[in-house]
Amino acid sequence: MEREEFIKVDDLEKQAWEILEKSIIKYQGRPVGIIAAYDTSQKSLNYDHCFIRDFVPSALLFLIKGKYDLVRNFLEETLKLQPKTGKFDAYIPTQGFIPGSFRVVCKDGVESLEADFGEHSIARVTPVDSCLWWVILLYAYVKATKDIHFALQPQFQEGIMLIMELCLATRFDMYPTLLVPDGACMIYRRMGIYGYPLEIQALFYAALRSARKLLICAGDEKIVDGIDNRLPLLRNHIRDHYWIDRKRLNVIYRFKGEEYGELAVNQFNIYPDSIQYANLAIWLPKNGGYLAGNVGPSQLDTRFFALGNMMAIISSLTSEQQSQAIMNLIEEQWEDLVGSMPMKICFPAAEKEEYRIFTGCDPRNIPWSYHNGGSWPVLLWSLIAAAQKTGRKDIGERAWGIAQARLSQDHWPEYYDGTRGVLVGKEARRYQTWTISGFLLAKELMRNPAHLALISFSQFDVENASQSCEL
Amino acid sequence: MEREEFIKVDDLEKQAWEILEKSIIKYQGRPVGIIAAYDTSQKSLNYDHCFIRDFVPSALLFLIKGKYDLVRNFLEETLKLQPKTGKFDAYIPTQGFIPGSFRVVCKDGVESLEADFGEHSIARVTPVDSCLWWVILLYAYVKATKDIHFALQPQFQEGIMLIMELCLATRFDMYPTLLVPDGACMIYRRMGIYGYPLEIQALFYAALRSARKLLICAGDEKIVDGIDNRLPLLRNHIRDHYWIDRKRLNVIYRFKGEEYGELAVNQFNIYPDSIQYANLAIWLPKNGGYLAGNVGPSQLDTRFFALGNMMAIISSLTSEQQSQAIMNLIEEQWEDLVGSMPMKICFPAAEKEEYRIFTGCDPRNIPWSYHNGGSWPVLLWSLIAAAQKTGRKDIGERAWGIAQARLSQDHWPEYYDGTRGVLVGKEARRYQTWTISGFLLAKELMRNPAHLALISFSQFDVENASQSCEL
Repeated sequence: MEREEFIKVDDLEKQAWEILEKSIIKYQGRPVGIIAAYDTSQKSLNYDHCFIRDFVPSALLFLIKGKYDLVRNFLEETLKLQPKTGKFDAYIPTQGFIPGSFRVVCKDGVESLEADFGEHSIARVTPVDSCLWWVILLYAYVKATKDIHFALQPQFQEGIMLIMELCLATRFDMYPTLLVPDGACMIYRRMGIYGYPLEIQALFYAALRSARKLLICAGDEKIVDGIDNRLPLLRNHIRDHYWIDRKRLNVIYRFKGEEYGELAVNQFNIYPDSIQYANLAIWLPKNGGYLAGNVGPSQLDTRFFALGNMMAIISSLTSEQQSQAIMNLIEEQWEDLVGSMPMKICFPAAEKEEYRIFTGCDPRNIPWSYHNGGSWPVLLWSLIAAAQKTGRKDIGERAWGIAQARLSQDHWPEYYDGTRGVLVGKEARRYQTWTISGFLLAKELMRNPAHLALISFSQFDVENASQSCEL
Repeated sequence: MEREEFIKVDDLEKQAWEILEKSIIKYQGRPVGIIAAYDTSQKSLNYDHCFIRDFVPSALLFLIKGKYDLVRNFLEETLKLQPKTGKFDAYIPTQGFIPGSFRVVCKDGVESLEADFGEHSIARVTPVDSCLWWVILLYAYVKATKDIHFALQPQFQEGIMLIMELCLATRFDMYPTLLVPDGACMIYRRMGIYGYPLEIQALFYAALRSARKLLICAGDEKIVDGIDNRLPLLRNHIRDHYWIDRKRLNVIYRFKGEEYGELAVNQFNIYPDSIQYANLAIWLPKNGGYLAGNVGPSQLDTRFFALGNMMAIISSLTSEQQSQAIMNLIEEQWEDLVGSMPMKICFPAAEKEEYRIFTGCDPRNIPWSYHNGGSWPVLLWSLIAAAQKTGRKDIGERAWGIAQARLSQDHWPEYYDGTRGVLVGKEARRYQTWTISGFLLAKELMRNPAHLALISFSQFDVENASQSCEL
């Protein structure tokens, strides 16, 4: 019986790898990326693009497997797509930006890469997370290959610097967080996540940590100082203002409004009436907690967003105690957050008027579907990484078991629907590559927790912040 | 009878001027600004500050009256408060930013100015409009005094450049518009105006027009080119995507969703279901139209915001036809937009769930109160300026008559409440200085339409874009 199980898993992995290999994009004879979905039954639309965020689990997986060339080529080619000049022009991507996706186009027998910075995308959303993931991936590549010289090449140092300049530059607000429009990350449709959404802030933190390790010691002091200054401020801002547990909920519940001045306790002027206490107080276990989805003027979005919370654990944006509390919450509210498919992209779904206003009546994002409370198997790897990081292996194994039993059978769909993730997503593509690579990556992380080091950081300590020369 | 009327108006003006004179802030013996409210019956909180946006109508009024020193001192002192360096630091105002307000503090007998960039404000909102109004005011000062040399001083050229750099610099989105958090302008509380609110875009356009006239011909080409490139793009973006009239409403009503690619008609992926057609189709007169409050991913905010629409007319952000259509709408929907007090800050109010979600349950912004559908007498001057600009003097006179009959009697309140603006605002201060100066400014504009030139621009024409040397 046990033997049979093993064979089945092996077959599953073999099958998954086969699809993945078939999804590799070649450019001038070299592998440079992976298409978003290998579903021959539907029109490709833009699923034949390589999306930077979709490529992440594949990249980590290939690095673990020692197949470095795909990732190296990807980093080199996407770096070439990054605009190196220009920051006053509208409708032209600003310097430092990394496109959301690219594809190979062939004209008169000559291949070239065509980038999309959001100008082709539905609703013209801007892929802010791309440049953050790019730096995180570059760090993972260096960590895997131990080839720091790759990142020390002048064009890579310039690329990192431009991204850091773009992200660190303040605008009108004084927060350490990044201000973005709605739909600027994995949730790339309007979902009421404008402003300072958690996912972007967690990726920003991880990108700052990565860049800090990669930038050369000498020179570029202004940017390195900027990173060193920002890291603790961003970390404290998130830990203080985004954190929700029973104790904090009690504080917020008793907030006084309209406080003026620097000593205000209720700095963001949150009105307790805007928060659904009745549900939340019951839902939050005594030893659990999580980071809120968003904090802004009179705004505290209490929805649980998985990727932001998982990346916060992985990058040590949360304190160790907070990380444990997040894992406790997942364990206690397993049916809501994991259910029949790990795991919910956000919980709960926006319903009724909230759905109408948050999404602008997006039929794709009806309650408990797609971004609005759907379940995304790609998130499995981040859950397992967070479980590893917090020493909660059992949570990871339990989640993996659920995914393993369904994914191949359902032909590796993009997402699942319903309050428990029982249904295959209404418009889900099959053979979604990040579903496949996320699954395989999760397995590799379980096999050897040491791989976590590719993407994980210890608590930040400015005194001992190592730089590239010490990497 | 007619004679008596005149005397009453004269008395009114005299009384208004007296309060205004008493509200002047002196700093080291010189007048530098005007406090927000001269209401001795209530705690001052921050109403003893000089707010940049509140000072605008007073400044224009004083310029018209030839009292240049107050405005000159204001411009000089606020320029000193503008940070000249630093753009990577959180919690420190970025270079180029102009504070939302300042006040005189006295320590050990030494006076100094203390600026607030939003770090003291309720909900920590950021006053993005400050730097835009500042440039607009500087232009008005030069226009009134004919003293271009004032703006040509190196520190002023630097100040303008820093503001332009701050505003023109693109971030992640590629739009010609400015991305801001909620509450970044006159509506300084959460009101669902995050993203690309009209008021900010209209002020941005006027500030670009102003800066274009003030920057020296030689040198700074990169910024001047940036302005020349941005102006038509911003103008076209607003005229195309923000405009709503019956014809446009019909197009939007039949939008197809989910269009991918550069040729998409429904670029922002607006779902018609999100728009309250039934009401809007009836409300919009055949010959009327207006600029929407906000446009973003799957978002078209169909609320009418007065200041943005008026400033769009005054700065020629709208086409001449569009400007006429806006005035037609005001005339046709007089009771809704002007009613018993010119004029509604926005229409209609957000009610029920919309109120809860847009404002975060802000008790100050309950439906038909304060920012959420309240009536603000300060807007009178902008309505009259727009009426002058479009040759619709009758609209201006009618509005002025309404204000004149009530304001003094009600002790110049900050705002009015109710669907028609019948009630004095629930928490309105009395003797609000911009209520007073707005009223006096409106009168001066009616007396002599030539004053409009202080703040108004003709249609932008890059070929004939005059610069400071030709001013």
